[in-house]
Amino acid sequence: MRHQPNTEGAPYEHHPNDILGRLMALPTQAEDFPAWYQEVVRGADLAENSLARGTMVIKPYGYAIWEAIRDALDWRFKHTDPPHENVYFPLFIPQRLLEREKEHVEGFAPELAVVTHAGGEELGEPLVVRPTSETIIWDTYSRWVQSYRDLPLLYNQWANVVRWELRTRLFLRTTEFLWQEGHTAHETREEAWDETLRMLDVYRQVAEDVMAVPVHMGRKTASERFPGADETFAIEALMRDRKALQSGTSHYLGQNFAHAYEVQFLGRDGEQHYAYATSWGVSTRLVGGLIMAHGDDTGLRLPPAVAPVQVMIVPIPGKTDEEVGSVQGAVGKLRDAIAARSWRGVPIRVKVDDRDDLRPGYKFADSELRGIPLRLDLGFRDFQANKITVTRRDTGQKQELGLDAASDAIEGLLDDVQRGLFDDAVAFREANSHRASTFDELRQLIADAGGFVTGSWCGDATCEAQVKSETKATIRFVPLEAQDPGAPCVVCGRPGVDEATWAIAY
Amino acid sequence: MRHQPNTEGAPYEHHPNDILGRLMALPTQAEDFPAWYQEVVRGADLAENSLARGTMVIKPYGYAIWEAIRDALDWRFKHTDPPHENVYFPLFIPQRLLEREKEHVEGFAPELAVVTHAGGEELGEPLVVRPTSETIIWDTYSRWVQSYRDLPLLYNQWANVVRWELRTRLFLRTTEFLWQEGHTAHETREEAWDETLRMLDVYRQVAEDVMAVPVHMGRKTASERFPGADETFAIEALMRDRKALQSGTSHYLGQNFAHAYEVQFLGRDGEQHYAYATSWGVSTRLVGGLIMAHGDDTGLRLPPAVAPVQVMIVPIPGKTDEEVGSVQGAVGKLRDAIAARSWRGVPIRVKVDDRDDLRPGYKFADSELRGIPLRLDLGFRDFQANKITVTRRDTGQKQELGLDAASDAIEGLLDDVQRGLFDDAVAFREANSHRASTFDELRQLIADAGGFVTGSWCGDATCEAQVKSETKATIRFVPLEAQDPGAPCVVCGRPGVDEATWAIAY
Repeated sequence: MRHQPNTEGAPYEHHPNDILGRLMALPTQAEDFPAWYQEVVRGADLAENSLARGTMVIKPYGYAIWEAIRDALDWRFKHTDPPHENVYFPLFIPQRLLEREKEHVEGFAPELAVVTHAGGEELGEPLVVRPTSETIIWDTYSRWVQSYRDLPLLYNQWANVVRWELRTRLFLRTTEFLWQEGHTAHETREEAWDETLRMLDVYRQVAEDVMAVPVHMGRKTASERFPGADETFAIEALMRDRKALQSGTSHYLGQNFAHAYEVQFLGRDGEQHYAYATSWGVSTRLVGGLIMAHGDDTGLRLPPAVAPVQVMIVPIPGKTDEEVGSVQGAVGKLRDAIAARSWRGVPIRVKVDDRDDLRPGYKFADSELRGIPLRLDLGFRDFQANKITVTRRDTGQKQELGLDAASDAIEGLLDDVQRGLFDDAVAFREANSHRASTFDELRQLIADAGGFVTGSWCGDATCEAQVKSETKATIRFVPLEAQDPGAPCVVCGRPGVDEATWAIAY
Repeated sequence: MRHQPNTEGAPYEHHPNDILGRLMALPTQAEDFPAWYQEVVRGADLAENSLARGTMVIKPYGYAIWEAIRDALDWRFKHTDPPHENVYFPLFIPQRLLEREKEHVEGFAPELAVVTHAGGEELGEPLVVRPTSETIIWDTYSRWVQSYRDLPLLYNQWANVVRWELRTRLFLRTTEFLWQEGHTAHETREEAWDETLRMLDVYRQVAEDVMAVPVHMGRKTASERFPGADETFAIEALMRDRKALQSGTSHYLGQNFAHAYEVQFLGRDGEQHYAYATSWGVSTRLVGGLIMAHGDDTGLRLPPAVAPVQVMIVPIPGKTDEEVGSVQGAVGKLRDAIAARSWRGVPIRVKVDDRDDLRPGYKFADSELRGIPLRLDLGFRDFQANKITVTRRDTGQKQELGLDAASDAIEGLLDDVQRGLFDDAVAFREANSHRASTFDELRQLIADAGGFVTGSWCGDATCEAQVKSETKATIRFVPLEAQDPGAPCVVCGRPGVDEATWAIAY
């Protein structure tokens, strides 16, 4: 069954934005989640495929969401103690440089895009388009780090990277994507370890407090580790189709890159030491996670903290010029009153949907599809009664407000929607988190229930591989610090050494 | 003669940042301007060359300057009426797409970097790394623009681009650089024309009001036009070596790209029309312009609006623990008092140079090299006398302030430095702007005086080429609207049709 848009009035004839077309194409999540995702991305004007395989155009509405996430991250990076600073390293990495850290190059070699010609000539040495920047950065750090006084280096860059993936999907996996990559160098193991976990927690904060997406912080198993890392940590979120999405990773790289690129420093003890490294990144993939964590059968549901438009006012046209004029005047006044207010320290983003070729019903549906947190409808009768109807996107709840006092209520309502979406996602995750004690239970829960399934694990990669091959589920995370689960491994029955949480993942 | 740093105390032994080494290496501008530029970029930790030919690493201090310029531009793009929105188009452009606009591809073909292999295989069609994005954007616009109701499209992107230049110089000309590129589509010629000039003026505002660099707005001659443009406008600034720097361009593209990529729309008249285009961009080159427009023999001079650190407090160590403690306490209090204040709407960026392995003299020289607008020195005797010395970087002027009231004075002093640098640059430009009536005068002024030389021009490319071949000077701009200069062409003596301003340029 296709979703029925909330329409009214005459049949839709033609509009370049083709709203009805977009709404009619939206399948329910239950019916076909991948198709729902694709149609929401298209219909809400977030992004589209571009010509080079697996690349995408991020459209204004999608890019504004990314900007809000980016700014929230960037502010937090700059306000740790000590703070991080932004830098920019080149897109092109000479191929030989990549080959120095063995695990790293093995991990990335199959996905590289390579420039062989430039300026009309064949290059003496091919240039790799960065898939990530550890190699060029640690080669540079070898010149920047001479003494313990030069440490720590706490740098981040916002950049595009390229990984030639075979199966791509808008935002979730594209051959080129936008991201940030933090690369830090430290004097001691402890400092680097703390940094790894500090930045993981920054990711959690932005996911939960800004994107309203609850996440688990955990450690990855060896098979899911970043190539070249000693430990990889991740934040894992649950999507509405009960699949998990790895939403950000923070790597403790030990001294691997310092050894590969000869980053040594004169220590406090007068001896030479290799520096300790971390790297951490999140990408435009987060936008995909946002869509799938909150969306419903009507479209997006955006938390106000990242919504490009937080409040949409829809004027309901009157019958006479006088009625139209009254409504327009009241709407303009209301918009200005709301725009003069701030929420979370920035002016509220309010818009009037004054497109004169669309009926209110289409505007309602469009606002829902785009996930705008609050919609305010004002008609002439409302104007006469000095009231306005506000509709929350997260719950669909309507309430009437006095027209003059409406702007007073907006901040509280934005708080409500922000909290409502988070609580909803937490409840969904709780309802879809299970425990298994036996392999049969694990298999059945993964096949029938989906979501996160936690159980005891012996720590053996064979058991991990067996679950994956039989169920397609992978271990999404084990606890940050290994802990005795006090029960036998759900797969093999040998003593458990860790709690593992499985899920089918993107 | 090498610049003598302002040092005191014992000889400099070792410091990883090697400040004395950096200062001693700084030649005067008069002696060797290119070497001065290179040493300032290195010494102030702005950027360095990276491994792939012509690429650069932008270091934290240099990147923070770029961020300030970027934010000033981004805010203005988003606050025009109607506003611009940010988008992101892919890095890779299929080669065939580039070939559709003939002039455009001819202009960029010699500079392209090409990906021929990806994912371990040779690509069926090579992918060009974008040198600019008109082609991929206008191909996409052909699907976005159907009706006049879809117009205007007012989009901008922040991105990296690659142009395989043979002679590169940090910030001024690098094979990869960071920039923004605006790409707009309009219903009418007039609208597109207005947009072209509106964005040129936004560039002027940021150059003058933020970077404190006075610029001329003008039109380019046909030989200096962007490949594919009907008209190119630019802002032109004068550097301290009396060479001109093209600092930003705004192009009126007419219907050229609409024809090449079939961007047609249903007009208000019911007919199909081709859309009108503009594009406009500024890049990290602006950082190079900032350095060369304001720097002096001691290093950078940064306008407060783009300075990563606006105020540096240097504590002068006392002789006893009590003295050291008093100074530290006062410095901390002063820093907090200044940080609690705002200038131009954002908190003042203040730092204490508390490096314990450096003597004050080195810190003074370092602060000067980095161009920090205000320096506050506080020693124990100052503390006892309840005063502090403030030094302006732009003029070198010192004044004493009451310690308790010092923070009250900072906003005014930042205004003074911002205005001082602008006025200084205006005065320098006026002193280096000349008029020529004959070819002999033109030749002599360019050879001996440098700077901008204005004269009458017949509009003929032959005269333009002759000046270039004999003097190396190019026409930097003609007035925005052609105007009768009322005098014969300085080159050939035929009737002048326009005023031209020549200079030797970067």
